[in-house]
Amino acid sequence: MPQKLRFGAGLWMFGQFVDRYATDAYGPRVGTLEAIDRAVQVGELSAIDINFPFPEPDLTVGRVKEALAKGGLRAAAVTPVIYNRQFQKGSFTHPDAAVRRSAIERAKSAIPVAHELGADYVKFWPGQDGFDYPFQSDYVQLWDYAVSGIREVVTSDPKMRFAIEYKFKEPRIHILFSTAARTLLALEEIAADNLGIVMDLGHSLLAKETPAEEVQLIARRGKLTNVELNDNWRDWDDDLTVGSVHLTESLEFVHALRKIGWTGYWMLDQFPFREDPVEAARASIRAIRALNRLLDRVDLEALRAAQDRQDALAAQRLVQRLFLGELEGSR
Amino acid sequence: MPQKLRFGAGLWMFGQFVDRYATDAYGPRVGTLEAIDRAVQVGELSAIDINFPFPEPDLTVGRVKEALAKGGLRAAAVTPVIYNRQFQKGSFTHPDAAVRRSAIERAKSAIPVAHELGADYVKFWPGQDGFDYPFQSDYVQLWDYAVSGIREVVTSDPKMRFAIEYKFKEPRIHILFSTAARTLLALEEIAADNLGIVMDLGHSLLAKETPAEEVQLIARRGKLTNVELNDNWRDWDDDLTVGSVHLTESLEFVHALRKIGWTGYWMLDQFPFREDPVEAARASIRAIRALNRLLDRVDLEALRAAQDRQDALAAQRLVQRLFLGELEGSR
Amino acid sequence: MPQKLRFGAGLWMFGQFVDRYATDAYGPRVGTLEAIDRAVQVGELSAIDINFPFPEPDLTVGRVKEALAKGGLRAAAVTPVIYNRQFQKGSFTHPDAAVRRSAIERAKSAIPVAHELGADYVKFWPGQDGFDYPFQSDYVQLWDYAVSGIREVVTSDPKMRFAIEYKFKEPRIHILFSTAARTLLALEEIAADNLGIVMDLGHSLLAKETPAEEVQLIARRGKLTNVELNDNWRDWDDDLTVGSVHLTESLEFVHALRKIGWTGYWMLDQFPFREDPVEAARASIRAIRALNRLLDRVDLEALRAAQDRQDALAAQRLVQRLFLGELEGSR
Amino acid sequence: MPQKLRFGAGLWMFGQFVDRYATDAYGPRVGTLEAIDRAVQVGELSAIDINFPFPEPDLTVGRVKEALAKGGLRAAAVTPVIYNRQFQKGSFTHPDAAVRRSAIERAKSAIPVAHELGADYVKFWPGQDGFDYPFQSDYVQLWDYAVSGIREVVTSDPKMRFAIEYKFKEPRIHILFSTAARTLLALEEIAADNLGIVMDLGHSLLAKETPAEEVQLIARRGKLTNVELNDNWRDWDDDLTVGSVHLTESLEFVHALRKIGWTGYWMLDQFPFREDPVEAARASIRAIRALNRLLDRVDLEALRAAQDRQDALAAQRLVQRLFLGELEGSR
Repeated sequence: MPQKLRFGAGLWMFGQFVDRYATDAYGPRVGTLEAIDRAVQVGELSAIDINFPFPEPDLTVGRVKEALAKGGLRAAAVTPVIYNRQFQKGSFTHPDAAVRRSAIERAKSAIPVAHELGADYVKFWPGQDGFDYPFQSDYVQLWDYAVSGIREVVTSDPKMRFAIEYKFKEPRIHILFSTAARTLLALEEIAADNLGIVMDLGHSLLAKETPAEEVQLIARRGKLTNVELNDNWRDWDDDLTVGSVHLTESLEFVHALRKIGWTGYWMLDQFPFREDPVEAARASIRAIRALNRLLDRVDLEALRAAQDRQDALAAQRLVQRLFLGELEGSR
Repeated sequence: MPQKLRFGAGLWMFGQFVDRYATDAYGPRVGTLEAIDRAVQVGELSAIDINFPFPEPDLTVGRVKEALAKGGLRAAAVTPVIYNRQFQKGSFTHPDAAVRRSAIERAKSAIPVAHELGADYVKFWPGQDGFDYPFQSDYVQLWDYAVSGIREVVTSDPKMRFAIEYKFKEPRIHILFSTAARTLLALEEIAADNLGIVMDLGHSLLAKETPAEEVQLIARRGKLTNVELNDNWRDWDDDLTVGSVHLTESLEFVHALRKIGWTGYWMLDQFPFREDPVEAARASIRAIRALNRLLDRVDLEALRAAQDRQDALAAQRLVQRLFLGELEGSR
Repeated sequence: MPQKLRFGAGLWMFGQFVDRYATDAYGPRVGTLEAIDRAVQVGELSAIDINFPFPEPDLTVGRVKEALAKGGLRAAAVTPVIYNRQFQKGSFTHPDAAVRRSAIERAKSAIPVAHELGADYVKFWPGQDGFDYPFQSDYVQLWDYAVSGIREVVTSDPKMRFAIEYKFKEPRIHILFSTAARTLLALEEIAADNLGIVMDLGHSLLAKETPAEEVQLIARRGKLTNVELNDNWRDWDDDLTVGSVHLTESLEFVHALRKIGWTGYWMLDQFPFREDPVEAARASIRAIRALNRLLDRVDLEALRAAQDRQDALAAQRLVQRLFLGELEGSR
Repeated sequence: MPQKLRFGAGLWMFGQFVDRYATDAYGPRVGTLEAIDRAVQVGELSAIDINFPFPEPDLTVGRVKEALAKGGLRAAAVTPVIYNRQFQKGSFTHPDAAVRRSAIERAKSAIPVAHELGADYVKFWPGQDGFDYPFQSDYVQLWDYAVSGIREVVTSDPKMRFAIEYKFKEPRIHILFSTAARTLLALEEIAADNLGIVMDLGHSLLAKETPAEEVQLIARRGKLTNVELNDNWRDWDDDLTVGSVHLTESLEFVHALRKIGWTGYWMLDQFPFREDPVEAARASIRAIRALNRLLDRVDLEALRAAQDRQDALAAQRLVQRLFLGELEGSR
């Protein structure tokens, strides 16, 4: 009997969205506790990735923990905010040593919060670490700043797990941790057992990676901390519902997760600017479940045999039968 | 009762493939008549787009016609070869007036062949007309050469239909007729009733168009001569089997064709470098049929209502139900 | 003696920037009059494209006019804000007729402002008109909504000029007016003499157009209302300083503008998130001037001859000599 | 006094070009010795990367060596042909063990040739190793095949140096060794001191890497065997002349090579389909020399200071002054 899937989400997907044009935002302000309420409404989530510090200065970790527990949720991760105004020119790689120090302290400040919430890991998403213009930076210096900054944080608490979430671009036009392979190289230099990778399906599509390939590359080195799912059009991190654009590659990603025996959360990371976030989360969960059910039905031996022969047409036929039904029908 | 779909193919997809690295080709030479035999083997094709001149100097149009008829095929189109060595720097836009003249004559030479074969149209695929380097060309001059050259050909025989097949790139790095909209602008300047557009699904994906949008733009102006189907990864014209990469967008393209009441051929244009071409054609036909069957089942009224509201999640749900089955199942 | 270049800028480039991550913005709030002050500080600008309504409810058009005049500036354009929260699902193409009506009224409301400010044109930038998901919209309906909405606005005042600024994407993932050619097709349907196109160099690069080609296509049809300059990495509208990434294509664009005898403004449209906007404007102006000076020195006859032959290497040599100096030097 | 630059080229750039459309090729056949003659004509080359086996069955290594020597050339590298018809479905990763064996033997057969020619390294360019369709392959299996195959070759002769040239795509749509970082990960697994990377500037641009960043990443790990230069439009390996499209990024790449103290060859890898290859090589050499001369003039201390501050506008100003001349001029 297949194991029941467990779902989680970034809490931000239930918050307020803004961009550089709709500066009056895509909806009213949403507080942390209200966002938790929305997450609860989804009815299928069991874990949350939550940003710290909370936007509300007087909101305590205890209150958040309580609200999560009351809603049947727990914290999967705490993600320190190292990409807002203060860190606009970088967090771990900021040119100013004082700001680099602030980034490290900000990241460390998430550790006791993660302990208190019982979270599995602290996530680094250094979206401002990189550059915008040719010749702007000394790339070796950026790399060394990032490696040493992250090493300091992760070695400060060997009992906590940490993970880097790589992304090809945005908000920085060129982000340092852009791909799975580059991040794996950095992990080796950092050389800390408690540091892994969070792989976001959309970030991988954006980086023109083959997600099913990279997730196995990461897992094989024992570095897959968690996965986040969504979809996009491959030239921006659109954070759409799962499977809405890349159905076949999403199926292949799910297949890869099953191959490596993934039993962790299936996290959602979406930005439903113009949709209801609760419905958008449910749509993704339905899609993930349905993709898993499709794969329950696939003839795995036949698929393996086709892949052993690298037989594109045979493999495609097995896959298309899942999506398109009996292929031999007439019309 | 739905109309039976009629399929066709470019004859080249049953021939020999070569590229710049495997200069010994991906397989042995295949003559025109042998390629027709392969097309017949597919068992589902009824029409062919055929290049002229034939590679065999002594092969007559009569022989080809006979071979087609014997195999139950007819010519949908004749495509003059205006993109080989002689035309490497352009056909209608070649810098040398003598070569431009040759291109026009070459194109005209396809007209009597099309008449003799009973083909529906002569197709221009000016894949060498464009440029490779910045500053290489006077773009206005290129445009005028192309417009006047094509005008000369199409006005030379008002009883024949003609069509331009646009493509974003390859073999020329920048092709003049790159998108549906640019080609429609050229068509207006040429102002000939017997000239339309052949829209290749893969070329549209490559141009980062929304194929379902552009096919309606073309059709609405009465300019859709034919369609060709295949798939690719959106940064090259990979000419893979239909639906192998972009399943949802292929479905949407099929939906658009049904909306405009398409009763013409569903042409295949593939380059199965490493696959059996007969099997590759069958795979595409199976996919096109299956996509049509899925759409037979969609609740069109609900889809129209969702689109009237521009309700992404509702529309997605209708579509995903087709691909993924009942979405409400548990797991 | 060459004519003196005249520069302008979108006023927004001197304002506050925000994105979806740095929700506390990249800097403090900047009022309209303060932004005008910054524009004046550039010391080289003579015209402004200004959004309406102003963010400050009590700011009068008279005050703005005064502030511009005092700073030696005038309004080149007024751009109605039809892309904020209210219009997040579309302006002219919003699914709700009442919001489409609001968009039309909002656009019309900019006309008396433009008259009062003495602006040359009202600019439509319908960045929310389009779609995010496959199957979300009826593309024909979107097109018709946009055509009829814009027609209503531009025919309401034949004495005012109007222009559409096309853009490939953002904030909507797929924008209806995505390319020069599609916009020209819409212009024909709208069929209004007082409607043209504002071409943004970066938008053209983003759409994978050849900017020097498209600007001539537009100009030749008498539809070039204005140009905006900036640079990006071709997969997002990064709004960087002119020539910072695509030096050769920027030079070619400037060359094309000179060929069509451009005497209008050279407008800047930048988003210097992490740079000083006054300095970023100056950098672009220096680059535009320098590109013009380079072209003052080019042997136009030799370039024309090379382009007549479509001789890539000869044309490149002329261009590289401008950038790289004497090419024959040893080392 | 700056060191004199030494140039090399892939011999193929002086041969015959063909693609899938101009199957009659872009010019007449060119034999190996004739290609060497053309390389000599360039007048600036001192080293050659040469394919093995030679196309001519009776051409001996001795004759080639003689011809090179007579022309003042030497072999920098020997590149075994593991990407033609026989290897169309893969070389080291071919599904059939017998073909994988052939690939290994083919690669090994280049080693004595490299010794006899006095070449610096044997280059692997496994352009067919990868996949075309989703679900076609077991990615872990492909990786292991490649790692073990290459390991066998490189450990068979510790006195020879070897290098992998990575490429994002083509001829295989998805190539296994797609980026610098992925290739570095493979190198670690292979763990052979005599194996490095050949970095092709165009391949790096195609992979959406920042070439100046990756070349330092490779060099720092002691793995930079050689570099090849050319240019393209970033979505295909167009193999154009150096600096023709990406002037600023080419300058930055040259700057990075100078920073790491590069004293090796500056190899050319071009496919001048429609240009004279001797002239195309000269154009690239002129550009590389000129880029180096520009950098001789840059204020390195000021650049380093700007990069320490990650000051985009200051760094850009230094760079633009090189390309555009005195920026303060009026107009």
